[in-house]
Amino acid sequence: MSLVRVHNFSVSLDGFATGEGQTLEAPFGHAGSRLMEWAIGTRTFRAMGLHGEGPGSSGVDDAFAAAWGPGIGVEIMGRNKFGPHRGPWEDEEWKGWWGGNPVFHTPVVVLTHHPRPVLEMDGGTTFHFVDAKPASALEQARDLAGGLDVRIGGGAITVRQFLEADLIDHLHVVVVPIVLGRGERLWDGLEGLEGRFGIEATPSPSGVVHLVLTRRGSR
Amino acid sequence: MSLVRVHNFSVSLDGFATGEGQTLEAPFGHAGSRLMEWAIGTRTFRAMGLHGEGPGSSGVDDAFAAAWGPGIGVEIMGRNKFGPHRGPWEDEEWKGWWGGNPVFHTPVVVLTHHPRPVLEMDGGTTFHFVDAKPASALEQARDLAGGLDVRIGGGAITVRQFLEADLIDHLHVVVVPIVLGRGERLWDGLEGLEGRFGIEATPSPSGVVHLVLTRRGSR
Repeated sequence: MSLVRVHNFSVSLDGFATGEGQTLEAPFGHAGSRLMEWAIGTRTFRAMGLHGEGPGSSGVDDAFAAAWGPGIGVEIMGRNKFGPHRGPWEDEEWKGWWGGNPVFHTPVVVLTHHPRPVLEMDGGTTFHFVDAKPASALEQARDLAGGLDVRIGGGAITVRQFLEADLIDHLHVVVVPIVLGRGERLWDGLEGLEGRFGIEATPSPSGVVHLVLTRRGSR
Repeated sequence: MSLVRVHNFSVSLDGFATGEGQTLEAPFGHAGSRLMEWAIGTRTFRAMGLHGEGPGSSGVDDAFAAAWGPGIGVEIMGRNKFGPHRGPWEDEEWKGWWGGNPVFHTPVVVLTHHPRPVLEMDGGTTFHFVDAKPASALEQARDLAGGLDVRIGGGAITVRQFLEADLIDHLHVVVVPIVLGRGERLWDGLEGLEGRFGIEATPSPSGVVHLVLTRRGSR
């Protein structure tokens, strides 16, 4: 069976995975880019062409960042990761934050109560809009994954729902040393989670701590 | 000027420094001893005579644990650390969780809205019950400290109040890889704290991560 994985999922010291007040200009709300600074400077993120100039760093942050892609056949994301809109689509012009050639290069299942037609982008990314609970969404995603692993892309609510349903095998959380104070928390409602996972911590000279949670019994 | 320090202050992944439902039998509520497991096995804690048998470990957890005492002339603690009672004292029989010869061996300022006479214990510990805001309590504690440093002993509410008042120079937080779900959070109301502190992270083979926050400009 393919694995369900989460990568490069950043939270603040107080456990927020995103700030308050998401808008078109501020995908992470008042958190700005602070939760992703550690990643923006890596060779992996530079190679995606999204951020900054130069080759980027190749230390421990890059080693973790680079694990995001290999072996992945599909991503599942919440609607808030796809865009800042809420409720029914006013139009279907919005095609995500990532331009005409998104970074995914695989099918992407977008969880929403307001489905719309499949959106084919350049470079192999296709957005599938699905109104389903985690287990059913995972089943549909696996059908699109060609036997490869499934990445849960976020945001916090989506990762939490999949953790609650005990559907995640590998969870890479990056603890960023900032106190956000408000936004969406990752760990809420997950009391006792540690009973299901082994946990390994690795600090980076950049100041973040990489936590890897591996579900007991997962390969 | 002497420093204000916090040591061995454990929080769960979701930021709780204590669980819910403190009682005489459960000082940390439903958290039990899980937040302090990393410390209980150290040489330092064994030497205090509180926990377990044998000499204890002498790795990185012990190195941090051992920094608790040296240079400290007084501790300030919240009333909930002193005991499980709330409101006016029904009697004055309760003398803390630590027996006749408490581990502190210095004056201890207990913050409470219900003062009572100074309590002299064996081994040099004296409990002073003080109804004061952080800045004033700190002033009173420094008068008792003989020029040495002040330790803020917890719990969460007390540490948070001193952080809010920007009175803490050195904050050692131990992130324990458990999700408690409920209790008292350390980081609430401290948005932007990182602007005032440099932060260093050290993981331990025991599974915890030691965070040391040093106030910018503190020696």
